[in-house]
Amino acid sequence: MYKILILHGPNLNMLGTREPEKYGNITLADINNKLEHLAKELKLEIETFQSNSEGELVSKIQQAYGKFDGMLINPAAYTHTSVALRDAILSADIPAIEIHLSNIHTREDFRQKSFIAGVSIGQISGFKYNSYLLGLRALTDYLFDY
Amino acid sequence: MYKILILHGPNLNMLGTREPEKYGNITLADINNKLEHLAKELKLEIETFQSNSEGELVSKIQQAYGKFDGMLINPAAYTHTSVALRDAILSADIPAIEIHLSNIHTREDFRQKSFIAGVSIGQISGFKYNSYLLGLRALTDYLFDY
Amino acid sequence: MYKILILHGPNLNMLGTREPEKYGNITLADINNKLEHLAKELKLEIETFQSNSEGELVSKIQQAYGKFDGMLINPAAYTHTSVALRDAILSADIPAIEIHLSNIHTREDFRQKSFIAGVSIGQISGFKYNSYLLGLRALTDYLFDY
Amino acid sequence: MYKILILHGPNLNMLGTREPEKYGNITLADINNKLEHLAKELKLEIETFQSNSEGELVSKIQQAYGKFDGMLINPAAYTHTSVALRDAILSADIPAIEIHLSNIHTREDFRQKSFIAGVSIGQISGFKYNSYLLGLRALTDYLFDY
Amino acid sequence: MYKILILHGPNLNMLGTREPEKYGNITLADINNKLEHLAKELKLEIETFQSNSEGELVSKIQQAYGKFDGMLINPAAYTHTSVALRDAILSADIPAIEIHLSNIHTREDFRQKSFIAGVSIGQISGFKYNSYLLGLRALTDYLFDY
Amino acid sequence: MYKILILHGPNLNMLGTREPEKYGNITLADINNKLEHLAKELKLEIETFQSNSEGELVSKIQQAYGKFDGMLINPAAYTHTSVALRDAILSADIPAIEIHLSNIHTREDFRQKSFIAGVSIGQISGFKYNSYLLGLRALTDYLFDY
Amino acid sequence: MYKILILHGPNLNMLGTREPEKYGNITLADINNKLEHLAKELKLEIETFQSNSEGELVSKIQQAYGKFDGMLINPAAYTHTSVALRDAILSADIPAIEIHLSNIHTREDFRQKSFIAGVSIGQISGFKYNSYLLGLRALTDYLFDY
Amino acid sequence: MYKILILHGPNLNMLGTREPEKYGNITLADINNKLEHLAKELKLEIETFQSNSEGELVSKIQQAYGKFDGMLINPAAYTHTSVALRDAILSADIPAIEIHLSNIHTREDFRQKSFIAGVSIGQISGFKYNSYLLGLRALTDYLFDY
Amino acid sequence: MYKILILHGPNLNMLGTREPEKYGNITLADINNKLEHLAKELKLEIETFQSNSEGELVSKIQQAYGKFDGMLINPAAYTHTSVALRDAILSADIPAIEIHLSNIHTREDFRQKSFIAGVSIGQISGFKYNSYLLGLRALTDYLFDY
Amino acid sequence: MYKILILHGPNLNMLGTREPEKYGNITLADINNKLEHLAKELKLEIETFQSNSEGELVSKIQQAYGKFDGMLINPAAYTHTSVALRDAILSADIPAIEIHLSNIHTREDFRQKSFIAGVSIGQISGFKYNSYLLGLRALTDYLFDY
Amino acid sequence: MYKILILHGPNLNMLGTREPEKYGNITLADINNKLEHLAKELKLEIETFQSNSEGELVSKIQQAYGKFDGMLINPAAYTHTSVALRDAILSADIPAIEIHLSNIHTREDFRQKSFIAGVSIGQISGFKYNSYLLGLRALTDYLFDY
Amino acid sequence: MYKILILHGPNLNMLGTREPEKYGNITLADINNKLEHLAKELKLEIETFQSNSEGELVSKIQQAYGKFDGMLINPAAYTHTSVALRDAILSADIPAIEIHLSNIHTREDFRQKSFIAGVSIGQISGFKYNSYLLGLRALTDYLFDY
Repeated sequence: MYKILILHGPNLNMLGTREPEKYGNITLADINNKLEHLAKELKLEIETFQSNSEGELVSKIQQAYGKFDGMLINPAAYTHTSVALRDAILSADIPAIEIHLSNIHTREDFRQKSFIAGVSIGQISGFKYNSYLLGLRALTDYLFDY
Repeated sequence: MYKILILHGPNLNMLGTREPEKYGNITLADINNKLEHLAKELKLEIETFQSNSEGELVSKIQQAYGKFDGMLINPAAYTHTSVALRDAILSADIPAIEIHLSNIHTREDFRQKSFIAGVSIGQISGFKYNSYLLGLRALTDYLFDY
Repeated sequence: MYKILILHGPNLNMLGTREPEKYGNITLADINNKLEHLAKELKLEIETFQSNSEGELVSKIQQAYGKFDGMLINPAAYTHTSVALRDAILSADIPAIEIHLSNIHTREDFRQKSFIAGVSIGQISGFKYNSYLLGLRALTDYLFDY
Repeated sequence: MYKILILHGPNLNMLGTREPEKYGNITLADINNKLEHLAKELKLEIETFQSNSEGELVSKIQQAYGKFDGMLINPAAYTHTSVALRDAILSADIPAIEIHLSNIHTREDFRQKSFIAGVSIGQISGFKYNSYLLGLRALTDYLFDY
Repeated sequence: MYKILILHGPNLNMLGTREPEKYGNITLADINNKLEHLAKELKLEIETFQSNSEGELVSKIQQAYGKFDGMLINPAAYTHTSVALRDAILSADIPAIEIHLSNIHTREDFRQKSFIAGVSIGQISGFKYNSYLLGLRALTDYLFDY
Repeated sequence: MYKILILHGPNLNMLGTREPEKYGNITLADINNKLEHLAKELKLEIETFQSNSEGELVSKIQQAYGKFDGMLINPAAYTHTSVALRDAILSADIPAIEIHLSNIHTREDFRQKSFIAGVSIGQISGFKYNSYLLGLRALTDYLFDY
Repeated sequence: MYKILILHGPNLNMLGTREPEKYGNITLADINNKLEHLAKELKLEIETFQSNSEGELVSKIQQAYGKFDGMLINPAAYTHTSVALRDAILSADIPAIEIHLSNIHTREDFRQKSFIAGVSIGQISGFKYNSYLLGLRALTDYLFDY
Repeated sequence: MYKILILHGPNLNMLGTREPEKYGNITLADINNKLEHLAKELKLEIETFQSNSEGELVSKIQQAYGKFDGMLINPAAYTHTSVALRDAILSADIPAIEIHLSNIHTREDFRQKSFIAGVSIGQISGFKYNSYLLGLRALTDYLFDY
Repeated sequence: MYKILILHGPNLNMLGTREPEKYGNITLADINNKLEHLAKELKLEIETFQSNSEGELVSKIQQAYGKFDGMLINPAAYTHTSVALRDAILSADIPAIEIHLSNIHTREDFRQKSFIAGVSIGQISGFKYNSYLLGLRALTDYLFDY
Repeated sequence: MYKILILHGPNLNMLGTREPEKYGNITLADINNKLEHLAKELKLEIETFQSNSEGELVSKIQQAYGKFDGMLINPAAYTHTSVALRDAILSADIPAIEIHLSNIHTREDFRQKSFIAGVSIGQISGFKYNSYLLGLRALTDYLFDY
Repeated sequence: MYKILILHGPNLNMLGTREPEKYGNITLADINNKLEHLAKELKLEIETFQSNSEGELVSKIQQAYGKFDGMLINPAAYTHTSVALRDAILSADIPAIEIHLSNIHTREDFRQKSFIAGVSIGQISGFKYNSYLLGLRALTDYLFDY
Repeated sequence: MYKILILHGPNLNMLGTREPEKYGNITLADINNKLEHLAKELKLEIETFQSNSEGELVSKIQQAYGKFDGMLINPAAYTHTSVALRDAILSADIPAIEIHLSNIHTREDFRQKSFIAGVSIGQISGFKYNSYLLGLRALTDYLFDY
């Protein structure tokens, strides 16, 4: 049974209470529930983790080595500014999929550059909470194919 | 029952015979079959279309108006060079999802700019043929939610 | 009696049915009628042609040589991406005027660059269908002055 | 009866005496006469004003508020350097059309950027004195349409 | 008793009559009154001056030398285009504070560059008419501290 | 009675002991005292918070929601590198004013870009500790006006 | 006996009738004749193809797979704008040589970038019709060496 | 006897009273005296003119046509921002030499671009007041050579 | 006896377990041992500190003031993104040497910019663990020379 | 009988001993032999010259004037950095062809800019030693055609 | 009696025989004679030196230390590419004036950047051979003033 | 016993006599002595070479092949402008370490780009003469490790 780490970056703990027109109005807990539900269906074990701290996210990824088979990461604002997250994923050597709630390719210029894309299998962006669910399916298929 | 148009851009007719390390070795016909199969499961009707010609793709999108409820488009090379495709999608006013087999965010600089992203709901890139299947699910969920 | 070729680029066949706030709600047929009407008044003969295909537009311009005295071209999306259209106009050596329905200078960055401007007498942009009529007048005056 | 302000920017008072290959050899007075003539035909009242001073042009535009229904402006060199003219047009809130004698899109790089385009209905460039006459027609049509 | 020069750049004479959503609806005279009022409270003498002309603003700053102890300058559009104003402030050697009604850092790209910032003590932007009042306080504190 | 959060970014805890020529020689405690003093005068309640950690600043802003009516933020080095702080302010939806001790517009190139400006009412920079006091006044006026 | 495909891009069908100062005054038929003649001498079989359509050129290259041992391609205007041609050559996996009549390195800025160079053995530019003949020799030598 | 116009741009009227380390401490009147003195020696007639206003400088250059045989222009700050001055010189068609007191090539980035250089015979920069005297000699030699 | 602080940035705790081809396969503990050993030889006292958190590294540098005579810092990923670290070093005013295991000048573009270089004595990069040992020697020589 | 100068730039004397995968393993002497052989066939006289010194290459080109009818130049590294070579070719006024062993258009960014292209008839790059032989043919054809 | 070194960069030995429309048709020997003649008049001793080699020019400048009181340098092509010449002038610490025959500010983009300007008193460009004579006068005045 | 080549680039022969605040006041001979001394201690044989000529440095590196086991190179000004040196090192295939006396990362923009870094093991910059000594140690360790 594959174990999957779900990482939520900064400000995602505020989901559902702010800017619903951009991100939908379900909370992070709702998303985690939906992920749990789908994980059961796909016969996966998942662990979720949210932090506003770049350093904590880096440490969590480091600890994933040997314990997880894959990860979904929504790096949020750190997508565009964190080389440290990139290096952590590179060093953990666990297949990662980059998740975005909104379609970052249609937003401000500074959100067009992703430091994470270069170390991920693929990217899913724009489907609100569903981006995570699609990501979990994608990761499952990836793991069973290799 | 929703009708979905699946558009395959230039060179995708060569899939499975070339560069398997980048795109996998299944053919476009295989992908269309998988899409048909999933469409049945999701209770959708699909039509697939491939062209190497920018103009034909533009015309196909124009004709989709009033006939289709959504579209998946893998614009391939035209992603980066075609304002005409962008304008066609804008004008057809049908929900579109951008599909890429490879993770374009990890390739050459000139593949980093997408003219299509700005007129799509979201983008799925990097999961080989599975990008299409995930896209079909994403589109279904999108249509049922609205 | 001068013969004038009127070229309409990609997606202009959709005029009047889409995005009326940007382009007005009259159709391409309406515009062609208005052009016919004004042509009669100005004692010109006109031929109109629309295509979504860059190659067809190039071929049409090539064939204009020796048959037309001037042309109006609304290159639409190809304004910003087609060096081939530019080369065709250069090679046909027929006076050309660049027409835009909307004021392209106030739109997205990628619409600021025109490959066509460098090979045209002048540019008229922003007056919706009237841009064509003004262009026909401008071309007439140009031809009678030389 | 609509009242139209015609603004001529710096160095346009020298027209007809210098660089005829670029701008034609008729003088600014000739152009004003032609404009008067066409205005009569179109049943418009016009006032013309030329200045080499950015500040005077700004003040003239400010005073136009409540007195004029539209304006033609050939900002000449200030097209590329004057944010103050842009702000004046914005603040006067009178429909403006940007006029250029030569096709600025085929000249030096520093003439490619127009601060005025963003606050104008449209732009007409490249038809020598005729650019003004076409502009007057365009403005008339615009005013009667709204 | 300190003497302070208050300089208002181009188009600020139009305040209160245009674009109230951006700049508030009080007039320049109102602002000058409020400044007079606060000046009395702070025991300062002020003189106000507005011009649409870059050259007049430059000359006014030159004449300030030896007559004023400090200045508030809202360079408006000239913020982004006038090296001459910058040189005048440099040469007058009077402490200057840069004032903006709107937050220029959130507006068009061409408003992000200030030629004035490099020769000012500090910058206050975004507080509508209050930017001036805060600036007068800031200048007072600066003068009493040195 | 309005409640105001005062946020001090990285390295500001070192104030008064280092680089007095750039930032003055009063300490952060001194600044907080001056702010307390002015708050009393303005009938405001304030809370101050300093952190060197981007994540802690993000969390503090998140918790401000519903508890504070406005905030002053001196993001220091994070001004130029933190999209996460920007997103936190956006999501907290509390009026924010950006404070800088030095005039950042006269410093290194990499200090010219502010991720915070786009989500703030206004910016005050260059008046050393007084920037905070002016900011507190600006915020008070803003709150009483709306 | 090696089989070579000779591809002529857009507007090359106009050769010899236009702009002789840039491209010489022999026609495309003349060039094809010269190529036939040299091919005989070099014991090669050649097929020539011209199109103004990007899509047709892409399709022609795809069909070359398994039928041709090498190709000469003069992509003309598509050199600078077509990622689709690049992808087609990549996918056909046939040795290709890039041909230009004029020395593109001495022309407009937008002609300095070649999407085709990255997937070609080499480039020959500037020798008018002779560029093709040199290219045919280069290709022959290349094929016999491997 | 040749007649020469000497133009001094904005802020040069302040010479000798400000920033002597950059420009020397002699006044503009001193420079004009030295120029008069040298003009007598070189058998030239000169007229000097200073203005802080771009428009006045433009008008002065226009009026020089037919009255002067050459001009020295120190455009000062307008060097870097005035296309209008450039157009005026172009249109006046009088040989012009560009003068700078300081070596502009060693100053701020925004002082590296000269709109005036492109319409001048040559440039002399960095020799304080002597730049003018060298310029007068250069102009004399130029006029006698042609 | 000089006291030296050795700072290891994010992901360096993973050394020796990941990507040995880039960084060698000795662990951070091994490096610290080697540093201890050399410190003894050079008669220095050292303290080592690793953190994945930018804020903790900033705080550690702040606390170094008055306690350490110099520092070696390998900022790892923060080299390229942290202005806060730069400001901390500036404020701590302790001689610092920048250390990199790999030659950052041969890696991705985004690793070419160092915010730390501008506040360091010098930089040593490319010698794997030996970069630290060379850095310790360099710092010793620097301290004894001043 | 035409006399041709063959210039080999820096490091080409090392050919055949280093990096055979990039440049082939034949030596510069081998290439010169092949050139001699072909020259005889084409009835040309050739002289070859190699230098690592930019100045020597410049002097050699200067001396070619009046002695040679054409030249092949492989500027190697100086292609990208030497304006002096460009000026020498310009001044010698002898038809020159630019030769590169590897396809420079597929290499590092800094190898994309050629100072030599602008003063050459054409460029041949990517065919290893054969680039020279093709160049000699191209030059012969060029000379016989003019 | 002051001793002045006159340095002529690459290709200047070809003067008078090539491109007279750009540089005049007098030779370098003629220029040296004119300089000798003026030097006598100004009571200076001069030595002239030309080289095509960057290294020789660097060495010559190094040897000038202690032997010359000033230098005129026309770096020609090395103006734009030689940091070594810049460093040599910096290190020789002899007042230098930069000379150009043509107005480099009106030529190709790559000739707009001067590595020499930053280490020179001033620059004289555009007056053909007279640039040198003006430079000699400028240097004399400079030396007598200090 | 390893043989090491020490290369000193342009202007380094002037060390100790110029700009001691940047480079220290010891001479190149002193540095060579210190290197000899350390070489003896490290049981290495060294040869030192200085040249102001790019070509001579290239030739020296070429001749090193088969005679030296490693090299230290301080390319000085050629660091930023010489592709030829880069190619020579590449072709000599001897381990090289890049040395700089000053911290080039804190100097002018044009000194930020190193053509040499991409072909070196590592870089040591900022430690004055000690950069060489550290480099010699680094090279020794490198050679003994492989």
